Amino acid sequence: MPHHGDATREGEIAADLPPASDAGLRFIGRIETPFITRGDCPRQGDMENGPDCVLNLAPIYGPALREIGKRRHLQVFYWLHAARRDMLVQRRKGEGPMMGTFALRSPLRPNPIGVSVVRLLRVEGTRLFVRGLDCLDGTPLLDIKPITCREEMR
Amino acid sequence: MPHHGDATREGEIAADLPPASDAGLRFIGRIETPFITRGDCPRQGDMENGPDCVLNLAPIYGPALREIGKRRHLQVFYWLHAARRDMLVQRRKGEGPMMGTFALRSPLRPNPIGVSVVRLLRVEGTRLFVRGLDCLDGTPLLDIKPITCREEMR
Repeated sequence: MPHHGDATREGEIAADLPPASDAGLRFIGRIETPFITRGDCPRQGDMENGPDCVLNLAPIYGPALREIGKRRHLQVFYWLHAARRDMLVQRRKGEGPMMGTFALRSPLRPNPIGVSVVRLLRVEGTRLFVRGLDCLDGTPLLDIKPITCREEMR
Repeated sequence: MPHHGDATREGEIAADLPPASDAGLRFIGRIETPFITRGDCPRQGDMENGPDCVLNLAPIYGPALREIGKRRHLQVFYWLHAARRDMLVQRRKGEGPMMGTFALRSPLRPNPIGVSVVRLLRVEGTRLFVRGLDCLDGTPLLDIKPITCREEMR
């Protein structure tokens, strides 16, 4: 998978996009996973048999976790900080036909936001132990939302 | 539902959060819906019977839509531009017990990113007609990702 700094390959299209200054994000913490390189990351997280990971929030967000321990599943938003952001046409995993970026779930996108559904195992202060992530260790955390049954089925 | 500019209510907790300058977003377009005020917005989008809405992308993103017409369902990311971002503890819809922001799906959150699954009806240039949104007309669009069966079931 190409990453920031990689050259554009034949057939791929990169664009000179407008500056990313329409809105600003604050990182609310970091995600701890056992995946140190991209090669370590599974294709998709596994809520049952995947490794335990930690959503490590900055202490200021402690009050925002009130009642979260009652939830079994969470939707986690994170920032794919290693991804280049100018690719419009690319190949899935460097193979197969050229596809538009919005027809792929590649991390290389104009706003590289990842979202995963995880199972909540336990809460220790502002550290949430979860299962189901596939992102790199140190990935910046953006948000956590509860998932209701209805949303799980969508 | 409180919005930007509303006073904090008794029991709610707002925080003086760090600046939102860890990463920048670029709006890739705007969403057109029939919902002009918050009161018009349904509690949740309806992919079957909801109104047709449009994901209106800036022309520069045209190439990034290649092959998207083959997809039936899309995950749409957008920026909840009207939401205040400093609430840590709040009440769901102004009712019920005080809850931590991360235990709620309220739009009032440190990084107000919304995500919905929609049904793709048709594509006309850089305008995607979809069903299943519940956001305000004019909402800034951040990203579009295809949904596979497996992800729909998660």
